[in-house]
Formats: sequence, C-alpha cells, structure tokens
Amino acid sequence: MTTTQKPTDTVLAELVQTERIHRLLFDYAFHLDMNHPDEIAALFTEDCYVAYGPTFGAEGRQAYSETLGGIGSFFAATSHHVSNIVVDFGPDLATAIVRSVLYAWHKYTKERPDGHFFGQYHDELVRTDEGWRFKRRELRASGVVDFHVKKQIPIGRAES
Amino acid sequence: MTTTQKPTDTVLAELVQTERIHRLLFDYAFHLDMNHPDEIAALFTEDCYVAYGPTFGAEGRQAYSETLGGIGSFFAATSHHVSNIVVDFGPDLATAIVRSVLYAWHKYTKERPDGHFFGQYHDELVRTDEGWRFKRRELRASGVVDFHVKKQIPIGRAES
Amino acid sequence: MTTTQKPTDTVLAELVQTERIHRLLFDYAFHLDMNHPDEIAALFTEDCYVAYGPTFGAEGRQAYSETLGGIGSFFAATSHHVSNIVVDFGPDLATAIVRSVLYAWHKYTKERPDGHFFGQYHDELVRTDEGWRFKRRELRASGVVDFHVKKQIPIGRAES
Repeated sequence: MTTTQKPTDTVLAELVQTERIHRLLFDYAFHLDMNHPDEIAALFTEDCYVAYGPTFGAEGRQAYSETLGGIGSFFAATSHHVSNIVVDFGPDLATAIVRSVLYAWHKYTKERPDGHFFGQYHDELVRTDEGWRFKRRELRASGVVDFHVKKQIPIGRAES
Repeated sequence: MTTTQKPTDTVLAELVQTERIHRLLFDYAFHLDMNHPDEIAALFTEDCYVAYGPTFGAEGRQAYSETLGGIGSFFAATSHHVSNIVVDFGPDLATAIVRSVLYAWHKYTKERPDGHFFGQYHDELVRTDEGWRFKRRELRASGVVDFHVKKQIPIGRAES
Repeated sequence: MTTTQKPTDTVLAELVQTERIHRLLFDYAFHLDMNHPDEIAALFTEDCYVAYGPTFGAEGRQAYSETLGGIGSFFAATSHHVSNIVVDFGPDLATAIVRSVLYAWHKYTKERPDGHFFGQYHDELVRTDEGWRFKRRELRASGVVDFHVKKQIPIGRAES
C-alpha cells in the first residue's frame, strides 16, 4: 500500500489531464444542447472520424461540420447527460482512449414523442497545442425510446 | 507538451478544490432528495441569490430557506442527477463559476404524472472558512415534461 | 485560505484514489450493461454483502455471483448512469465509504413497459493489491417507474 506516499508526477499529470478531458466531453454536450455547431466542430481534429451508425459516419471535420447544420431545425431542445467517464492514456499523455455513458433527451420540432437515447461514447482523443480534441468519436446505443434514428451501433451486450 | 512534467502547485490546488466543489453540488442534490431543507440552506451564503424563474428568485438565505419548506409535502420523491460539471476559478481560488447539467425526476404527492426537468445549473461560489458555498444559483431549463412549474429560465439555445 | 499553497501529499493521494474509486463504480455499471456477470463479481470481495431489498441480500461473492446469471435473459438492455459520487476515506486510504446516485433504464425481454430506477448506491470499499473492491454495496430507491422489483430499500427521505 503506497496510498499515503506522495503520488508520482506522472499520476498527478494524468489526474490533471483527466479533468481537462472531462471538460472536452462536457463542452461537446453543452454546445450540442446550445445549438452551437461551429463550437462543436472546433472540438474535433481536421482528420476526425465520427461514427453515426453501423455502416456510416463523417470523415473529416468539414464533412462532420456539415452534418451539424440540422440540429437547430430538427430538434426543439436536447439535453445530453454524460457520466461514467473512464480515461486511459497513451504514451506521454499525448493521446487518450475514453469511454463514457450518455443519456440524451430530445424534443423534436415536428409533432412526435420525445426521443430518449441510452448508450456509450467511445472516443480517441489527441492532445494538441490548443488542448484535447476528438480524433474519433463513436456513439453506441444500449437502447432507444421513440428515437428518430432507427439503426444504431450496438454496445455489444453479451448474449446469455 | 508538458504533461509529463510535474504539474504546478496551482494546478493541483485547483484539482483539489474542484473535487470539493463537486461535493457541494452533490450535497445539495442529496439533501434535496432527502428533504433536508436546513442542510440545503446551510450550503448558501447569507447574501445568496437563488434564481427560480425569468422574473423572480429568493434574495438571501432566509428568504430562500422559506421557499424550501414545501419540498416534503409537495413532492412524494425526487431524484437529482448532476453531471457535466465545469469549474472556472477566480483569483486565489477564492471564488468559482460553475456550470453543470441536471436531470431531475419528480414524483408528486398529488395525483399527477411524474415531472421531468432537463437543464443546467449556473453557480457562483465563494470559498469560506467552512468551505465552498453558493453565492448565486440559477437553474435554466433545456426543457421539461409534465413539470409543475410552467415558466423556466431558458438555457438560451441558439435559433437556427 | 491555503488554496494557493501546495496541497499535502495526503490530499493528493486522496484525489488519485478517488479517481480509481470512480472507475470501480463505472466498471460495475459498464459490465452490468454489457451483461458480463463474471467481470461484475470480480469487483467484489470474497466476503462481500450486497443488499437487494429491505429484508434480503447476497452474502459472499459466490452467492452474489449466482444472482447475476439472469441479467442477460431477464433484460433485453439496461443503461446505468452513475453520478453525484461522494467519497470518504478511512485511515491510510485503505477503506472508503462512497455515496452515489443512479438512474437506470431497463428494457425487459418480456413484453412490458421499460423500467426506470432512481436512487442511491451506498458502498463500503476496501483497497486490495488488485485495487479497490466492493465489500458492501447497498442500493436504495428514491423511486421507481414500471420496475420489476416491487419492494426496495428506501433512501430514508425525511417526512414533512
């Protein structure tokens, strides 16, 4: 047991970067709920890949950015609740693999029941001079209720 | 890249205080769900301001405290889920601006559908000898479902 | 006010262990949603106690493990959202008392409405050579909606 010993500088540096990674995830959710597509896109790398579904996604920030235009007109309101964040760092804390859990509520502009999304984000982050950015973001569904997207990437729950 | 260098004492002090600020937010939610109005009020400064709606709020801990009396009789149960916490410190870590996200479920004592609140807390905190306290707390709504309060402070989602 | 002073090694060690404890709670939720009963059981001590209801629970990892077999067949999907985590350490950071909040969504294999659970985890953790483990885990309910378990341990909300 070494808990009462001084934590190493590396462990402390990981803690500091973990908090900054939390903020990246929270800024994404904030700007999504605020309908700030430009601020969302700025959180991704130029060569990012964003996986939407089993068979498709957006390659590159420009392509991803174009998919964000409809947020404001398609949704009347959204609320993204991100928790259960687990961070694993690469060498020199230059990259990170991050897993988190999402509950998202969606109110549509069209007359239809509110949509509920339950699932996981799986992210590959890179540390840039401007801070942490999404290089790859994949959203997987545990399940949905009255959601507008019919086909999701499953979390891969084991069969019994 | 300085991640593998030793974090500065200031950065580490911010991490320590960030965890304590998380606890303030979580204690508020805990005492609210437990119907502990006195414990809730004790988390606020004497001169606090709590914003309820677009046009009204409670000025001072005493006035705020009086608004908490009805929690137990009005709600049969509540559950406040706080996440997406982002903290920005003022000089000397004596103050902090905090943004967080709330999903709150409400079961009423009256026969009516459960109420759901989705939104953001925007807090101004001050550090006292007894620890962090709320000087200003504002609750903004992304949206609500079957909620008893008809008029909320909007999060200010951008129009498209 | 000593915030700008260097945090003590003990305080920093607590921060490091707090993050590891978060991960234990998140790994539990992850493996539950992924239907990984063996991975869940491995997070508990040999002599653990898991409290299910007001009058019963599982004593020991083996007994607990046997209760996990039905997860995959009983639920079509679940999503466990853990937040509001508050950690209090024992001497030498060898033990910890942890309180957290849960929102869990359950989709059943049987034809019935989705079940929603709102409540609190109350955990007693011990630090082993393999890391933090659950020695005691108790789930208390603020309330439920269409949940399959009729009787829960209440959070003990004060009467008005």
